[in-house]
Amino acid sequence: MPDPAPSPRTRARRLNYKAAYDRPTIDAILDAMPVAHVGHIVDGFPVVTPTLHWREGDRIYWHGSSASRMQKRATGEQVCVTVTLTDGMVLARSGLEHSVNYRSVMVFGRAEVVEGPEAKAAHLKTMMEQMFPGRWDQLRPITAQELKATRILSLPLTEASAKISAGPPLDPPEDVTWPVWAGVLPIRLTMGTPEPAPDLAPGIAVPDHATDYRIG
Amino acid sequence: MPDPAPSPRTRARRLNYKAAYDRPTIDAILDAMPVAHVGHIVDGFPVVTPTLHWREGDRIYWHGSSASRMQKRATGEQVCVTVTLTDGMVLARSGLEHSVNYRSVMVFGRAEVVEGPEAKAAHLKTMMEQMFPGRWDQLRPITAQELKATRILSLPLTEASAKISAGPPLDPPEDVTWPVWAGVLPIRLTMGTPEPAPDLAPGIAVPDHATDYRIG
Repeated sequence: MPDPAPSPRTRARRLNYKAAYDRPTIDAILDAMPVAHVGHIVDGFPVVTPTLHWREGDRIYWHGSSASRMQKRATGEQVCVTVTLTDGMVLARSGLEHSVNYRSVMVFGRAEVVEGPEAKAAHLKTMMEQMFPGRWDQLRPITAQELKATRILSLPLTEASAKISAGPPLDPPEDVTWPVWAGVLPIRLTMGTPEPAPDLAPGIAVPDHATDYRIG
Repeated sequence: MPDPAPSPRTRARRLNYKAAYDRPTIDAILDAMPVAHVGHIVDGFPVVTPTLHWREGDRIYWHGSSASRMQKRATGEQVCVTVTLTDGMVLARSGLEHSVNYRSVMVFGRAEVVEGPEAKAAHLKTMMEQMFPGRWDQLRPITAQELKATRILSLPLTEASAKISAGPPLDPPEDVTWPVWAGVLPIRLTMGTPEPAPDLAPGIAVPDHATDYRIG
C-alpha cells in the first residue's frame, strides 16, 4: 500500500493510527472550527497567531490587516496552519495514559496573497455567507479603502493531514482493574444567547443567521 | 511611561490597545485553557502542534514522548507557545468590522528540558493535581520506564504577552443606524456528562475531580 501522506512533512510520525489524509475528514474539521493557529517564521523565530480561517473547495483562506507584520511576512513564505477542536479529557488508570480527545488538521505550504479588489470582496462575501447565510447583502457595503486595507492569504490543501483522537481510555489489560474511575469528560463549544449591541437601533430582531450559528 | 512589553518581539504591533503584559492577566488566560499551540521550526519551515500545557509559578510546561520529532527538535530551540480562548463572534454593521472576542497569550523563548526522573514525576503530579485534585495518588503509580519515555519542556514567562478582545461591535458612528442586527454571539467551552470507560470495574463512582472539571 502506498504511503497515503501527500508529503514527508505531512506524514504523522507519532500515533500514526490517529492520522488521516482523506479530504472529507480534513474538510469536516476545517469547516467545524473557524479559529486557526498560523505559524510563521519571523526574524528566525516561530510566531503562532490565532486567526479566523475559512475553506473554499481545495483551499483555505485567512485575512488580516495589510499593515500587519504577520500578514506581510507570511506572503510567499512557508506557513503552517493548524486547526484544533478539543473534544474531551481522557482519564485513564495511570498518569501517562491520560490524554485528550481532539480533532486537528495541519496544512503546510507557501502562503499566497489574493490580488485585486473584486477577488478580495468575493472571498470575504463567501466567508461571511458560510458563517452567517444572507448577512453580507444586509451589511453596509464594503468600501474600496477597506478592501485595500485587507490582505487575504491562502493555502492549497495539497499538504494537509488530520489527526483524530476519540473514544475511551486505552489502558493496558493489567491496569484495567485498578480501582480508580476512568472515562471521558466531554468538552463542547456551545453558543450562548445572542447579545444585541448596546447601540442597536430599536425594532431589529435577532436574525436566524445569528441564532442558527454553531461551531465545533 | 516606559514600554510595558518585556521585549520587542513581545510587543503588540496591531491593535495594541488590546495588549496586556501584566502577569495576573497572562496567568488567568494560561490557567483557563490547557490546550496550547506550540510553534517550532523544523527543517526551515514552521510547524504548529496542539498540546496540553500547564503553569507552575513563573513557567509553563508541556510534555510529550521522548521519541517525538517535535519534542526533540524543540529542546533548546526557539519556540512560540500560544494559548487562545474563543469567547464570541462579533457581528457588526459592516463586513470588516466583524471580529472575534478572544483571550490569548503568546510566550516566546528557548524551550528547556526538565532533567531527571524525580523532577519529571513531580511536574507530572503538579499537572494532574491542578487539573484533577486528588487523582494522582489514586492512579497506578508511574514507572521508571514511563518517565524515561516522557519529555517535559518548559519556558519561563519572561517573554509573554496577552491580547484580549471583548465587548460589543465598535462600528463608527455613521454606521450605527444601518438597519442590520449587530451584537455578540457568545461561545463557551462546556463540559458534558462524564462517560465511564466501557471496561470500568463495577462500583466506582464518578469522582468530584471529574464532575468539577471546567475549562475556559
